[in-house]
Amino acid sequence: MDAPPGAPAEAAPVEVAVVGAGLVGCLAACFLARRGHAVTLYERRPDPREAGAERGRSINLALSARGLDALRRVGLDEAVLKAALPMPGRMMHAADGTLSFQPYSADGRRAINSISRAALNRTLLEAVSALPGTRLRFRHRLTALDPDTGAMEFATPDGSVTAVSPVILGADGAGSAVRAQLQTRPGFDLHQEYLDYGYKELTIPARGGDFAMDPGALHIWPRGRSMMIALPNPDRSFTCTLFWPHRQLAELGTPEKVTAHFAEHYPDARALIPDLAADYALNPIGHLVTVRCAPWTVRGRAAMAGLIGDAAHAIVPFYGQGANCGFEDCVELDRCLTESGDDYAAALALYESRRKVNADTIARLALDNFVEMRDKVASRAFLARKRAEHALERALPGRYVSRYELVSFSTVPYADVERRMARQRRWTAAATVTAALGAAGAALGAGALLRRWRRPVTPATRSPGSRTAGRR
Amino acid sequence: MDAPPGAPAEAAPVEVAVVGAGLVGCLAACFLARRGHAVTLYERRPDPREAGAERGRSINLALSARGLDALRRVGLDEAVLKAALPMPGRMMHAADGTLSFQPYSADGRRAINSISRAALNRTLLEAVSALPGTRLRFRHRLTALDPDTGAMEFATPDGSVTAVSPVILGADGAGSAVRAQLQTRPGFDLHQEYLDYGYKELTIPARGGDFAMDPGALHIWPRGRSMMIALPNPDRSFTCTLFWPHRQLAELGTPEKVTAHFAEHYPDARALIPDLAADYALNPIGHLVTVRCAPWTVRGRAAMAGLIGDAAHAIVPFYGQGANCGFEDCVELDRCLTESGDDYAAALALYESRRKVNADTIARLALDNFVEMRDKVASRAFLARKRAEHALERALPGRYVSRYELVSFSTVPYADVERRMARQRRWTAAATVTAALGAAGAALGAGALLRRWRRPVTPATRSPGSRTAGRR
Repeated sequence: MDAPPGAPAEAAPVEVAVVGAGLVGCLAACFLARRGHAVTLYERRPDPREAGAERGRSINLALSARGLDALRRVGLDEAVLKAALPMPGRMMHAADGTLSFQPYSADGRRAINSISRAALNRTLLEAVSALPGTRLRFRHRLTALDPDTGAMEFATPDGSVTAVSPVILGADGAGSAVRAQLQTRPGFDLHQEYLDYGYKELTIPARGGDFAMDPGALHIWPRGRSMMIALPNPDRSFTCTLFWPHRQLAELGTPEKVTAHFAEHYPDARALIPDLAADYALNPIGHLVTVRCAPWTVRGRAAMAGLIGDAAHAIVPFYGQGANCGFEDCVELDRCLTESGDDYAAALALYESRRKVNADTIARLALDNFVEMRDKVASRAFLARKRAEHALERALPGRYVSRYELVSFSTVPYADVERRMARQRRWTAAATVTAALGAAGAALGAGALLRRWRRPVTPATRSPGSRTAGRR
Repeated sequence: MDAPPGAPAEAAPVEVAVVGAGLVGCLAACFLARRGHAVTLYERRPDPREAGAERGRSINLALSARGLDALRRVGLDEAVLKAALPMPGRMMHAADGTLSFQPYSADGRRAINSISRAALNRTLLEAVSALPGTRLRFRHRLTALDPDTGAMEFATPDGSVTAVSPVILGADGAGSAVRAQLQTRPGFDLHQEYLDYGYKELTIPARGGDFAMDPGALHIWPRGRSMMIALPNPDRSFTCTLFWPHRQLAELGTPEKVTAHFAEHYPDARALIPDLAADYALNPIGHLVTVRCAPWTVRGRAAMAGLIGDAAHAIVPFYGQGANCGFEDCVELDRCLTESGDDYAAALALYESRRKVNADTIARLALDNFVEMRDKVASRAFLARKRAEHALERALPGRYVSRYELVSFSTVPYADVERRMARQRRWTAAATVTAALGAAGAALGAGALLRRWRRPVTPATRSPGSRTAGRR
């Protein structure tokens, strides 16, 4: 109000502390620094550009449309894709060694991209460092946080360090220290639920300088109650990940048992993993947790603390959407800051109101997809259904789209994907009934159905209100 | 194996640390000390026998069959009941001041007992202190715990103190510090969910040396979305508790608004609370949380930590079962220790396997009962249903029993109560249908039904297996 008429309002420089310099923390820092905000990034681990990557965390991930869209907005998509390997489909490995390939998209060309988590993290860290106004603080482990004052305490190799920031963004993953601080406040709802499964990584090295299997696929060994997957790496190795019930992991206690189990259930992979028993014994067991919480932001008198990425909504990895979803969070927060004129209180509230339902949706889909990956993909009925689905997609382009396509190859909000799936199910069921009714009596119904079918489905017409309107 | 034949095996003295000297912590300590175990009780607050009771926590509670059964086992029931006021029913206060009394039990004689939390806690603390081998450590706030080694760290007025115990029992309530330490371990599931309601306490003082209302009832002002209750105290005052949506609590920001709101919605209570506006402004807003978690026990190499009472399963107060359920935990743990020969690892596992389903059940019933108390009890249909229920109970003694009766006046496990309710619903529905079918055609069905009805229902016949057997 004090600005002279006509002069652009000068925004006060905003200070933001981002806790966690993993994928989401770095990307969030990029977005915020590009807005001119002064970002300090705190990370409990040493600088991965100096130290090696931590062992035991998933060393590669599948980047798809949402993640790439976010990277594009900060100009990093092309650089990142150069180090990625496209996987246009799944390769199923039966116990007898039979392979079957299943494209992910109807046109067979769209691909998800295998990328090294460490390489992607380094690229993002370089990008943060290069932006003006950013500061990186490694080996800083958050031990206390008061969202009322913005006071933080960190354990560092040089002892305890304090800092204050009016805006604190927790991007510190599934085991978030920021969330642990917020969780003790009355009114903070939290649901953390572990799967009864653990995971363990193994390596299929390159053979004679080349990939030991087709690098153009995400490989799956579906075994009903358990499974193994493998993603290609740029060094022509594959990283395998076993997803096994904890009981099964515990039972295979000796190298002999491990080798025998693989020889029986994963014979083709067994032949490709020379250090199987040693790898198995050495690599730690990872855990699979789903975390839902609310609110994502706690506002105090002089400060506020918000959550983003896995810290706000940790999900299991079975839809390949963890990082993609976290990157999409960054895009949405950036959008909300634009809409609110860089007012963090308003932006964080808006961001939560839009993202929470989407995060809850992908959390559920990721759990559901575990059953699909470890069990259903092995059945002929599933393969036939996928082929039928793709045929429908090609016959009705833009009208019928599979869930996988919308989740992995679009940026349609996850919750909207599910609304669309429900609609498609109703239509498909109605079409089946209509067809069954026979020609004469069904002509009227089919005509009406066809008129509805022909109406293009765009995001703008997806709200319940517009559906009601469509029934007039 | 080394004991000479015929000599009784000498049990090694067991050391147990109980964290939290509230109701459940004290009672658990009593049970364990009576087994000859060396119990150290840690409490973050000062000794309530020296300091006054903390303001803002519910100052009275309703003790019923389960709690009394537990106290009886340690010889404290009679002493405790002397300081309690029996409440054989609910007194509903309509907005126009009309009163209606509803007995809790079919015979109108069974009562729940209003008791001061502070007085009960003091009685239990005295009981712990009097038992050999017990040690009490006040002003000890748990700050770290390693269930692997049994190492604990406490913040005290004299600085940090450490202790080690092979068995650690967290009885430290809904905001359990023990649970917070266990929660960060992989595989620990946690659900904490707050109601959108807060509570606030007010006082109706004695009038002319006597109770201002009937002391033989739990008073309820049901107001649809919100409510107030009042329980009598031995000093002839009543403690009122408002359960209001947080929004409503926030909206009444001035003494004038508070007074006007009460004059409109609680006119009879308004006349009995002289310091209404001051009380309202002074007393803090309490929060209502439900916590479910699993596992309740984390076993390490050299130690284990388990949870009991609200620390394991915090529930909302609307069934009056929080303390009763926690006391029942103590009975079950004691029983499991007997069955396992004081092997804590086995006993804690057995205790969890038996209690978890019951704790989950009462958590759900307590949430459901909030709707009943604040809304349904105000309707004529509800009163008529209660009268019909009590008539059925009197007509079919032991066959038809209301849920409230089984929860409050029996020690039938909560989950069994629900199984019985489901069965009663089916029978009642079947009886209604049978009656509607008319005399002739229904004779056979009614006969069969009657034969089932006549079969007495005992806990032993409540398992799904025995139900199947009954159908042969």
